[in-house]
Amino acid sequence: MAETKYDVLGIGNAIFDVLVQTDEGFLARHGMTKGGMALIDEARAASIYQDMGPAVEMSGGSAANTIVGIASLGARTAFIGKVKDDQIGGLYSHDIKAANVAFATAPATGGPATGCSYILVTPDGERTMNTYLGAAQELMPGDIDPAEIAASAIVYLEGYLWDPKNAKDAFLKASGIAHEAGRQVALTLSDAFCVDRYRGEFVDLMRDGTIDLIFANEAELHSLYQTSDFDTALAQLRNDVKLGVVTRSEKGCVVATKDGITAVPAFPIKKLVDTTGAGDLFAAGFLFGLVRGAGHENCGRLGALAAAEVIQHIGARPQVSLKALAKQNGLPV
Amino acid sequence: MAETKYDVLGIGNAIFDVLVQTDEGFLARHGMTKGGMALIDEARAASIYQDMGPAVEMSGGSAANTIVGIASLGARTAFIGKVKDDQIGGLYSHDIKAANVAFATAPATGGPATGCSYILVTPDGERTMNTYLGAAQELMPGDIDPAEIAASAIVYLEGYLWDPKNAKDAFLKASGIAHEAGRQVALTLSDAFCVDRYRGEFVDLMRDGTIDLIFANEAELHSLYQTSDFDTALAQLRNDVKLGVVTRSEKGCVVATKDGITAVPAFPIKKLVDTTGAGDLFAAGFLFGLVRGAGHENCGRLGALAAAEVIQHIGARPQVSLKALAKQNGLPV
Repeated sequence: MAETKYDVLGIGNAIFDVLVQTDEGFLARHGMTKGGMALIDEARAASIYQDMGPAVEMSGGSAANTIVGIASLGARTAFIGKVKDDQIGGLYSHDIKAANVAFATAPATGGPATGCSYILVTPDGERTMNTYLGAAQELMPGDIDPAEIAASAIVYLEGYLWDPKNAKDAFLKASGIAHEAGRQVALTLSDAFCVDRYRGEFVDLMRDGTIDLIFANEAELHSLYQTSDFDTALAQLRNDVKLGVVTRSEKGCVVATKDGITAVPAFPIKKLVDTTGAGDLFAAGFLFGLVRGAGHENCGRLGALAAAEVIQHIGARPQVSLKALAKQNGLPV
Repeated sequence: MAETKYDVLGIGNAIFDVLVQTDEGFLARHGMTKGGMALIDEARAASIYQDMGPAVEMSGGSAANTIVGIASLGARTAFIGKVKDDQIGGLYSHDIKAANVAFATAPATGGPATGCSYILVTPDGERTMNTYLGAAQELMPGDIDPAEIAASAIVYLEGYLWDPKNAKDAFLKASGIAHEAGRQVALTLSDAFCVDRYRGEFVDLMRDGTIDLIFANEAELHSLYQTSDFDTALAQLRNDVKLGVVTRSEKGCVVATKDGITAVPAFPIKKLVDTTGAGDLFAAGFLFGLVRGAGHENCGRLGALAAAEVIQHIGARPQVSLKALAKQNGLPV
């Protein structure tokens, strides 16, 4: 197999986060489903934003957060995602490049503005996301550079890519190129409502070998197999995909293969501040472990550690060097 | 005297903050003077930003931060400052209105972009600011609404207004209207280098009664009177202005009038994270105390409390309700 240029290349919706701490009443007033990611149009974005308190802004996007986490752990990474050439797109491009992630996707020069997610963080630390996809909808198969994909040990995709109309084709193109080059393809199911929208397609992606590794949280797993029984769902997952990783919040995670199951506890935290990015950073730690050849238990521990860092502050990007943090905690980096 | 509509109206440069935690080496490499505010042009802004790590963005601006702090304590506030009608200007306008501050300054429709400050926070918590004024330079005397000024108990101005070419005239216009209406005018000296640029003018503003109340930190006070002796400088300040408030970081503050001096200790903190906004929020607490008729000691304690909140997290705007915080600490609100 040819040498790799990147350990992990991520493809996802490039979304700028607008975060605010608020009360439960805000969610009720705006008819939001707590803990979910709802797609919104420009008019609803304006209406939500107008009612939001003073915010903090930073770059986000699920797969992008994961890739930034992997870079922070010290691996070689790249990201493909679409912003517009507007001010917010400029901030977004800066942040991902500044995190040592290769980012070469040309920004859109027309059409909708750079995508934004209006994120409400309630006092219990839960986040409720309202995403205006904007320019992220302009990601096309032509944005997938075959040479970059073929040179990446793992291609990481987000389920959210099923929402913009052309990103799905970009996703399938990337998976095909990766497998032809003998690489691995990973997918996060992203969100239980997203799974609800595309359940059949996601199951097919696993069964037909388009993807090799699935990340899901419990709600997404239950939605995928339409069962409230964890063990039933897990058994189905083991049957459908080579490697399945299920996160269970404070109960840690379960790594499932056809050969067996490994449970890994969560990493202790002082205070839950904001769950935004918890799953993304878990995936970052886990994938980093995989590319370093760590066993599944250490992959899970790296995931738990990265998730614990990100949920103890506002925002979905790590605030410290995850490499240093992993070292301090005796994990392999 | 006519009824007031606002307790405090602030006029300042409307600046969006781009904050990053970095090491001392960054400051050295870019020839920055640690702890200062340097004015930069677009080219230098681009060069600094390109080298900066992933950032967090939020609204800032010295007087605006103070006004937001006063609003958070529960008083009636307004702000006058100039953004452009670009994406960042939109974020800025949202944030200040969402903080319950009246903000009616028309955004610039042409000319430079909304002003940004590139703020480097070193591991010791000190912040070093590099400010591209942008649209803030377009603040004109015409932006000062005489009725709003006359209806504000205190007009609060920042020394930084001496930098953009027309803001000075806006400043003097506002002071004149305020005094004609029997109101008070306060000024923060902003920055030791700013004092160095306009020393003579600032002293004249005090001596000719254009301003009634001065906020300064030690470095600014020493720069103002070109002496390294605190007591000498303080004696001159008492001679030049009706009310002078000097902040001394962890040593607390000194409130000086012709009648005497009141020293107030700093408020204890757990961990210094980022000094950005420390002086701004001190002024917020102090001015809030004044409008509520608190004595100078309680004014100083309110200032110390608000400053302590803001230096324990990244960014210059309060993250909690200062009113609730003051109540918890037995201070009058």
